[in-house]
Amino acid sequence: MNLFYVENITGSTAVMSEMESRHCVKSMRLRNGDSIRCTDGNGFLYDGVLVEDNPKACVIAIRQQTAMPPELPFHLHIAVAATKNPDRLEWFVEKAVEIGVTEISIIRCAHSEKESVKTDRMERLMIAAMKQSLRFRLPAFHPAIELQALVQQYAPLHDWQKFIAYCGEENDKQELISLAAPQTNSLILIGPEGDFSPDEVVMAQQSGFRTVTFGSMRLRTETAALYACCQMHFINELKKK
Amino acid sequence: MNLFYVENITGSTAVMSEMESRHCVKSMRLRNGDSIRCTDGNGFLYDGVLVEDNPKACVIAIRQQTAMPPELPFHLHIAVAATKNPDRLEWFVEKAVEIGVTEISIIRCAHSEKESVKTDRMERLMIAAMKQSLRFRLPAFHPAIELQALVQQYAPLHDWQKFIAYCGEENDKQELISLAAPQTNSLILIGPEGDFSPDEVVMAQQSGFRTVTFGSMRLRTETAALYACCQMHFINELKKK
Repeated sequence: MNLFYVENITGSTAVMSEMESRHCVKSMRLRNGDSIRCTDGNGFLYDGVLVEDNPKACVIAIRQQTAMPPELPFHLHIAVAATKNPDRLEWFVEKAVEIGVTEISIIRCAHSEKESVKTDRMERLMIAAMKQSLRFRLPAFHPAIELQALVQQYAPLHDWQKFIAYCGEENDKQELISLAAPQTNSLILIGPEGDFSPDEVVMAQQSGFRTVTFGSMRLRTETAALYACCQMHFINELKKK
Repeated sequence: MNLFYVENITGSTAVMSEMESRHCVKSMRLRNGDSIRCTDGNGFLYDGVLVEDNPKACVIAIRQQTAMPPELPFHLHIAVAATKNPDRLEWFVEKAVEIGVTEISIIRCAHSEKESVKTDRMERLMIAAMKQSLRFRLPAFHPAIELQALVQQYAPLHDWQKFIAYCGEENDKQELISLAAPQTNSLILIGPEGDFSPDEVVMAQQSGFRTVTFGSMRLRTETAALYACCQMHFINELKKK
């Protein structure tokens, strides 16, 4: 099955972006009359027919709209520091969308070596990953937020479980997998190569974040972020049984 | 802590490869008399002193040899098809070494679009990942093996649990996490972009492999391979408790 992405579908026709149109006509060689399946990234699957195979702006006649069940029974927000090498962060974003995440934030921390990310490129990556993994919801993406602002924003949300991954010495530190509850909205903070500063950890703890570790492993920023994402899925899989 | 890699350490002195020597002298700026920690990738940590800061061949006087406990209480072998884009496979290998794996094989399947991988590059990646994640065992790496040969090799190993990830229609297919036992030697087969052929799946099943899925997710080859690696770790983490 091929899935196309079309933003804001309203009414009975939808127009693809130039990028999707080129992919549809040039790569997939679809022509007028061919069936098309697309999503708006907001949880809907649309079945339609290609009525204008224009490589700059394909037009689809929508035949059916289907509301798809949520892929995750809870909200999973991963907030991660930018990596020095942008490929590593882009890689994490692609994989997190494939495996399943509802929100990704790039946080600015005391030890951040890099603060900006290419938002357009990230969005293209996320759309491609959503289509590839047959998902129908495009995760929210925040390209730059101060750690303190994010922590303060979530401090009052008592129905969320909030974690900060920390490599430094901490007595009360436990593994994420032993602390995290299933079916619960979750925010996990992953620091930069230089880790969070002790002050940042204290600030987060005072706002209701619990420090977690990934065991004896010293993981790169992007690896820790994806590992955390996998663990949250795993915890929910087990709850099912 | 910085960890260097030196192959086959015997006796009281060790000589670094040119790559490691350059890194030691040029990047880390270590000089004669500086302390050095290195591993042979066979489970040993060596504490020593740099006695010849030659950027082509550093010499270390070994002071202490420590046998490190195994990082995994079982043998985890991931056999994966080469990806069309080599970066994707290299990415998997790096991440698998960081998270922990004992053996990686690149399998040739009916639908493989690419069969060869750059072994030297892979080994460099694995060494870098081992050092980065402070591991002391370099996983075994097999750059090219026919799927059938691998399946036949493992068929008689009844103390191993053997899985083949399959996207196709299969009634008896279950999720890896619900089938896999902890603390058990495991081999997991991950197919190419075009999936395993039905014949390949039947062949594996007849040799004691169980078909597994990763739920509703349609994961890329390298994502599925890493997801499987993470799941085996989680299963063991939980068993601890």
